[in-house]
Amino acid sequence: MRTRPLKVALLGCGVVGSEVARIMTTHADDLTARIGAPVELAGVAVRRPSKVREGIDPALVTTDATALLKRGDIDVAIEVIGGIEPARTLITTAFEHGISVVSANKALLAQDGAALHAAADQHGLDLYYEAAVAGAIPLVRPMRESLAGDKINRVMGIVNGTTNFILDKMDSTGAGYQEALDEATALGYAEADPTADVEGYDAAAKAAILAGIAFHTRVRLDDVYREGMTEVSSADFASAKRMGCTIKLLAILERAADGESVTARVHPAMIPLTHPLASVREAYNAVFVEAEAAGRLMFYGPGAGGSPTASAVLGDLVAVCRNKLAEATGPGESAYTQLPVSPMGDVVTRYHISLDVADKPGVLAQVATTFAEHGVSIDTVRQQGKDGEASLVVVTHRAPDAALSGTVEALRKLDTVRGVASIMRVEGE
Amino acid sequence: MRTRPLKVALLGCGVVGSEVARIMTTHADDLTARIGAPVELAGVAVRRPSKVREGIDPALVTTDATALLKRGDIDVAIEVIGGIEPARTLITTAFEHGISVVSANKALLAQDGAALHAAADQHGLDLYYEAAVAGAIPLVRPMRESLAGDKINRVMGIVNGTTNFILDKMDSTGAGYQEALDEATALGYAEADPTADVEGYDAAAKAAILAGIAFHTRVRLDDVYREGMTEVSSADFASAKRMGCTIKLLAILERAADGESVTARVHPAMIPLTHPLASVREAYNAVFVEAEAAGRLMFYGPGAGGSPTASAVLGDLVAVCRNKLAEATGPGESAYTQLPVSPMGDVVTRYHISLDVADKPGVLAQVATTFAEHGVSIDTVRQQGKDGEASLVVVTHRAPDAALSGTVEALRKLDTVRGVASIMRVEGE
Repeated sequence: MRTRPLKVALLGCGVVGSEVARIMTTHADDLTARIGAPVELAGVAVRRPSKVREGIDPALVTTDATALLKRGDIDVAIEVIGGIEPARTLITTAFEHGISVVSANKALLAQDGAALHAAADQHGLDLYYEAAVAGAIPLVRPMRESLAGDKINRVMGIVNGTTNFILDKMDSTGAGYQEALDEATALGYAEADPTADVEGYDAAAKAAILAGIAFHTRVRLDDVYREGMTEVSSADFASAKRMGCTIKLLAILERAADGESVTARVHPAMIPLTHPLASVREAYNAVFVEAEAAGRLMFYGPGAGGSPTASAVLGDLVAVCRNKLAEATGPGESAYTQLPVSPMGDVVTRYHISLDVADKPGVLAQVATTFAEHGVSIDTVRQQGKDGEASLVVVTHRAPDAALSGTVEALRKLDTVRGVASIMRVEGE
Repeated sequence: MRTRPLKVALLGCGVVGSEVARIMTTHADDLTARIGAPVELAGVAVRRPSKVREGIDPALVTTDATALLKRGDIDVAIEVIGGIEPARTLITTAFEHGISVVSANKALLAQDGAALHAAADQHGLDLYYEAAVAGAIPLVRPMRESLAGDKINRVMGIVNGTTNFILDKMDSTGAGYQEALDEATALGYAEADPTADVEGYDAAAKAAILAGIAFHTRVRLDDVYREGMTEVSSADFASAKRMGCTIKLLAILERAADGESVTARVHPAMIPLTHPLASVREAYNAVFVEAEAAGRLMFYGPGAGGSPTASAVLGDLVAVCRNKLAEATGPGESAYTQLPVSPMGDVVTRYHISLDVADKPGVLAQVATTFAEHGVSIDTVRQQGKDGEASLVVVTHRAPDAALSGTVEALRKLDTVRGVASIMRVEGE
């Protein structure tokens, strides 16, 4: 057992950082035993040094993160600042000074993962980021290492706890979107500005990271099709229930049938109540992974929060410290397949479409003809009439998204169609 | 990229081994890219060389596994023979000749894991065994690495697919044990001699391995309390349903409340239908892990079968090959906590007890007094009388198993108790 400690710089000391510091102190003996050397919190870079941080020696606190990284004795940096800058520059500085990095920064990794991996490789260092996707759920390591001998064909997951909480409330209480969002905000599940969550930006960043790992290819944030869930209504949940479904905001990553391209997307979708993801409640996350040999796997757990995220960060810290001692590095970026990312129009999916139509003969024939003209086959139609108005609910068979959205555009132009009340994809069957 | 291939000896070529060989051939390019060097199947040791093995070059086949390991050019051995001997001697021989080992052998690891880990350490080699527990489900690596910075307090899992298939059939169709077993046998889920599965030996071996990893302590197979599920009846399922429960064969590993000892056990138990493990159907496996910081995680997937097990073996092969190239080793055995394993009597649990009693006044009072004398508090009692006979169903609060089983012994001696129809633990609440 080595007695000289490995020195850790903690960049950021918010909800996650303070929990990382706390566990490093309270579980120091366990970490020492598991790493094979003591690990020491050597400095904590913060923005507001005057804030009291329980359990953290004030002598360790600095506002100069760069100086901390440059002082020459740091082995590992833990970046839990979030956002693009200054995190990106600090991680780059760390690599330039021989420091391996553990990061929880999904936005940065989704945007600049390739460049950061290249910098880590160039300096023979580690970049680990289990905490960036689905909080405490071991997902990056299982996909990158446990399934390294397998071929992942599909990943489908609930990777944002805030939106799952909101959708779960809407489903279980019949509340509308705004009411459920207000409850999520009051309980601390949603931020004051919930845009990143409800518009799917957070999930899209995680989707880009997961797609890169799953398919050994580079998937940029811009490659991920994204639709938020602010338009999901109580009426949509009522429709879903009639189909034996619920609605979830899903990140879906798929290898095309010919294996020559991949797709990555985030949008709300109806999934059958019998699907394991349907029973993921409240702010929990869960990710389904379908691999050629392994079959269908699911990983489930808390997707956010200080302690769960800290657990993932510390797991990475142990691995990176062990690598340092062995003078080795863990698996880096694997992007050898270089598969193209196809646009949303190429995704094969099913639509659930609600139309407000004139209540007169011939409407269904006209609508059905429109579907046929676009090569979209109809699975079921349900017609409901009331007071001269009528609604038509159509569920399609699987077809390319471009054909489905083209159908919807054409339906809007029919004079018997007064409006498209809702469109929702149907997945998981 | 290194061009000299890493050479692999495959020991055993049954259901799993032949699938490993197949994937090594069909996915050779992917494995090369992920490892950073080509990997070559250099020899296949079998018992019956005359058997035709599709896709395997007959020139590679040998009956002399020892000679294969001793020939001097093997980097990694994959042991998929199963059982204690000759697997144990072959793994030891591999280590003596500088060969790292990937094994799927739960029985051997549960019995001799400590000695095998010591041999691997002594020679600076890897011993990986993801496939030994819960087939394709990444579990060993997440617990050993992803949660290395956390403290696991509890593991509760369905780790045997055969028994889960049988119990699921009994639950969903009302079939009795024998009928469900016959169906499992006909479908290939149960072996001709199902003893290892239905008596819980297979699950106990996995429990010992998982307990060692979870608690960083050595847990021998003999330390695991074991009860099979052959006595579970349709009546038990009816009782479970009345309580909003189902019955699963569970492996449960717990750290005592004071943190100073652990327990490991395998037995059938009632769990609430709302528990995520309750919805694990057919031959699937799932394992719940509760960690201090991470919270509650679940890992779900196929627990057996040629392809899923091969997926886990190949994930380990990639890791071991990468370690070989880096001249490093992965995490070895971690048993530094050396916690004692407490006997079953110390486990705190709840009992569901069905008694056949005389249908006369005073019986309940006598029964209740017996519970009180053993310090066991009663949660609910349900009395049903018919034709001078009556049954009494008692569900207790949590108490040490010794107190609960002492209570049952005392109940048997009461002259008003005609028999104890069933006893089942209640878990997961």
